[in-house]
Amino acid sequence: MARATKRLEDVSLVAFDADDTLWHNEPIFLETQRRFRKILKLPDSKNVDERLYAAELKNIRHFGYGIKGFALSMIETAIEMTKGKISGRDIQKIVELAREMTTAPIELLDGARETVQRLAGAFDLMIITKGDLFDQESKIARSGLGDHFKHIEIVSEKHETSYGKILRKHRIEPGRFVMVGNSVKSDILPVLALGAFAVHVPYETEWVHEKSDRRPEGDAFFTIARLAELPSLLRAS
Amino acid sequence: MARATKRLEDVSLVAFDADDTLWHNEPIFLETQRRFRKILKLPDSKNVDERLYAAELKNIRHFGYGIKGFALSMIETAIEMTKGKISGRDIQKIVELAREMTTAPIELLDGARETVQRLAGAFDLMIITKGDLFDQESKIARSGLGDHFKHIEIVSEKHETSYGKILRKHRIEPGRFVMVGNSVKSDILPVLALGAFAVHVPYETEWVHEKSDRRPEGDAFFTIARLAELPSLLRAS
Repeated sequence: MARATKRLEDVSLVAFDADDTLWHNEPIFLETQRRFRKILKLPDSKNVDERLYAAELKNIRHFGYGIKGFALSMIETAIEMTKGKISGRDIQKIVELAREMTTAPIELLDGARETVQRLAGAFDLMIITKGDLFDQESKIARSGLGDHFKHIEIVSEKHETSYGKILRKHRIEPGRFVMVGNSVKSDILPVLALGAFAVHVPYETEWVHEKSDRRPEGDAFFTIARLAELPSLLRAS
Repeated sequence: MARATKRLEDVSLVAFDADDTLWHNEPIFLETQRRFRKILKLPDSKNVDERLYAAELKNIRHFGYGIKGFALSMIETAIEMTKGKISGRDIQKIVELAREMTTAPIELLDGARETVQRLAGAFDLMIITKGDLFDQESKIARSGLGDHFKHIEIVSEKHETSYGKILRKHRIEPGRFVMVGNSVKSDILPVLALGAFAVHVPYETEWVHEKSDRRPEGDAFFTIARLAELPSLLRAS
């Protein structure tokens, strides 16, 4: 084990999560969910959220993450909660909500552009994002940041195995790799388990599915409050 | 241009398309479409197919290829063709059709397993498939063939740019690369344009979206009737 001698200054490849790390994503889902509740016009909106989340959990196994799976989950929830009485016109409105999500403007997080630009001169940069290939490619294109990244990896799940595959494919030793992201479960724990570095940048809201009870620890783990702190962390330590 | 000296025997990497090249895929969509028409119970089934294809074309821009986009297109077509009168229960049946597609058994084409096994000893093998990341990973896993492939590339579109990126990423010269697939438009023409080799294996049915008016030509293009002819083609020429 070379862990004792591993130093953050040896890192040569900086990988970023995308959704809610480089740009706002969860708010688009929350806003869509608000409009979904409005279409349903049911008295108990909390119950709608719970049933929708249950449908999402069930469907992730069949449909994966992303807008289209979310759309199908909204449609199923609408049918279930109205006991099949929802109109075709309202279902059509739900499909329109999903289509609007696919073209929603991408709002970068504060400091994201400057941080990426600054680091691009000193490191190889990579995006590692989980989700729907089509959605994620479209968001990367709309973000205007794509050209700063040497590699873009879109995976269906972020766990030790998928990170391990990426490191092997690019022939990167864990001690030269740092992952930066907002999800402890997806961006931090599996990367630390591989012996690489991880930097947590908490986001204002977190999808319940990404919550983790485990707290990361150890010398290879860092937390920063804002992305703009990343350049000095990577140089100073 | 080194085209004049390019020889098929110099190929070291053999890339396969997946859907309707290694396993049957279009029949699953056709069977789902048949069951969709049955749910709608409309007199003019040809018109249903035409409206569904129009919805698919419109939605590819927003949702990309794959089962989930197909499901949303079926739902929109159902609402449109019944003038919004389709019941929630029937929409639910359409979502069930989509969910069944995600777990449909993968039937390999004749000779696919043997061909892949035989070639795996002599070449690096790759899958290059277009479509939904989640769907395609799931099909590769269910096919049982995944372990024979050194690399798996799932892309949202197959054109000269996406093939070029793959070749650069894996540092493969075009003259050492052959693509094998059933679609002239997606598997053959863009690969020939890059100066690589391409082998067409026509499939019994073709999605109208994949049809091409252009006929491939040149010394780097080959056609075989069955996948089992591939090993001797790659060795004998």
